[in-house]
Amino acid sequence: MGGNASTSSTLEAAHRFGRLAAEAGWVVLTGGRPAGVMEAASVGAKSVPGSLTVGILPSGPDGPVGAAVDIAVFTGVGEARNVINVLSSDVVVACGVEGAGTASEVALALKLARPIVLLAPSPEAAAFFRSIETRASLHEVETPEAAIELIEHRLGIARWSISKT
Amino acid sequence: MGGNASTSSTLEAAHRFGRLAAEAGWVVLTGGRPAGVMEAASVGAKSVPGSLTVGILPSGPDGPVGAAVDIAVFTGVGEARNVINVLSSDVVVACGVEGAGTASEVALALKLARPIVLLAPSPEAAAFFRSIETRASLHEVETPEAAIELIEHRLGIARWSISKT
Amino acid sequence: MGGNASTSSTLEAAHRFGRLAAEAGWVVLTGGRPAGVMEAASVGAKSVPGSLTVGILPSGPDGPVGAAVDIAVFTGVGEARNVINVLSSDVVVACGVEGAGTASEVALALKLARPIVLLAPSPEAAAFFRSIETRASLHEVETPEAAIELIEHRLGIARWSISKT
Amino acid sequence: MGGNASTSSTLEAAHRFGRLAAEAGWVVLTGGRPAGVMEAASVGAKSVPGSLTVGILPSGPDGPVGAAVDIAVFTGVGEARNVINVLSSDVVVACGVEGAGTASEVALALKLARPIVLLAPSPEAAAFFRSIETRASLHEVETPEAAIELIEHRLGIARWSISKT
Repeated sequence: MGGNASTSSTLEAAHRFGRLAAEAGWVVLTGGRPAGVMEAASVGAKSVPGSLTVGILPSGPDGPVGAAVDIAVFTGVGEARNVINVLSSDVVVACGVEGAGTASEVALALKLARPIVLLAPSPEAAAFFRSIETRASLHEVETPEAAIELIEHRLGIARWSISKT
Repeated sequence: MGGNASTSSTLEAAHRFGRLAAEAGWVVLTGGRPAGVMEAASVGAKSVPGSLTVGILPSGPDGPVGAAVDIAVFTGVGEARNVINVLSSDVVVACGVEGAGTASEVALALKLARPIVLLAPSPEAAAFFRSIETRASLHEVETPEAAIELIEHRLGIARWSISKT
Repeated sequence: MGGNASTSSTLEAAHRFGRLAAEAGWVVLTGGRPAGVMEAASVGAKSVPGSLTVGILPSGPDGPVGAAVDIAVFTGVGEARNVINVLSSDVVVACGVEGAGTASEVALALKLARPIVLLAPSPEAAAFFRSIETRASLHEVETPEAAIELIEHRLGIARWSISKT
Repeated sequence: MGGNASTSSTLEAAHRFGRLAAEAGWVVLTGGRPAGVMEAASVGAKSVPGSLTVGILPSGPDGPVGAAVDIAVFTGVGEARNVINVLSSDVVVACGVEGAGTASEVALALKLARPIVLLAPSPEAAAFFRSIETRASLHEVETPEAAIELIEHRLGIARWSISKT
């Protein structure tokens, strides 16, 4: 998860995380639009042969979709689709938390008790989310590599295998 | 799309349609629950190597999911997910229209102007949906084979290829 | 509930039903847009002093709202708001069932087991909805007066009182 | 907006704000459940004759509703209803921002560019939301009285009048 209009270092981190997640064998799910962190993570994932990307879009099928999205889910429910992103993810990785949409997704992940990883958050974001009472598991890392390590070894998220199909 | 509690001939048609659609190279999207037409169509599709199935679930991740669903999208929005099913499908195939949920999906497909195929509808369902004013393309067929033929040659729906990933 | 583009006799029935429902002391909930049955029922209700009307809109606050809607609920979820209409109504009254949106609301009301009254349905609509297996209570009437009588005496729906506030 | 499990000073502020908002002639909209800030604000509002309260519930009609809610809107969409709360409010007032649900509503209000007032936020919440880039108007106040003053004189939100009905 991440903003439409992120800094170049956030976009680079999103691209690298997408690639590493796909190499590790996970499906990469994003908000699906051709912008910002969503686009960067999907493109990173699709640079890996055999990868699979899912996009949960706010629009119906007339809206824009990133070219690196394999499976486009058109919700037509606008920002309410942020809840679907969170519920459908085994772990939510927030790249940057620079925008309000990402902040809502982190807050929803905390509310819905989904595991969440803040990747290179601002000091304000880290301080705020740590201050909220919650049952969820909240983690902070500084690099995509550390995020992958955490997800695999500490959270133990199962890999999806294309051979399953 | 189809009911939770369908007749055995409807379930057989759903299974066969799922298999034929997967063989033709389409992704099979259902409501994702381990019941009725959803389950039958997904199981049919997964009998084909290289197939891909998507389930759009009414529940969050605590709810039941069919074992033949590859990509589970947990919406948490209950019956409102029927709109997402319709918007995310290139063509909606309704097996039987025996229940109210399926009827709502056919009606929503008509409302949202998505192409729709009624597979072996009851005379009452066929007569009613034909009577509704709409911009959508509504079709009736009697067999899964005829549905595939229609979708491929008359509707010209593009195939999804696993090699894309 | 009813279509955007209904016949004049359906609109007259909607207006009359809205007025009678408000006179009987019920809150009138519609889809809220300035069109068709929604508009007619709200305007009918607001011709009664002390009435209260609610509109459940598909759009956000930038979208159009009927002038006779007191409480506008902006959902931003498009056609998925039909589920909210149904869940929030003590009884669903469908005026005409001439369009696909109304058909989806009737189907959802059947699915969600809400009491439903079809007011002057077409023969095809009446035959179809009667043919669907369901736990819901489905009724047919020919006039707004008969709908009020049914709701009050047979369904026993509680009246809302402005004095409550 | 506010948490289910708030401190007593937050609940007192919510109750007082609800009363003052109703006295000023505004409709008070909350999440509708019989808990926390939602309940306190609705009860405060209903202590004023002629007031009107709306509750936007996550559940269907089988779920719990606060006794001080006049108009219950049953969405059935779970946490996705937070978007509806925000879109339907002329101004969002967050009491405390102590929980993740409220944080998601503040973030969504920022995303959707709705005016928002943080009433007695924690230092972490204030610092974080100020740090997010946004088009929305974000305000902080320390008392319910200051919130009312701001909404009336600086934001110029129109009052709803029961005489309208």
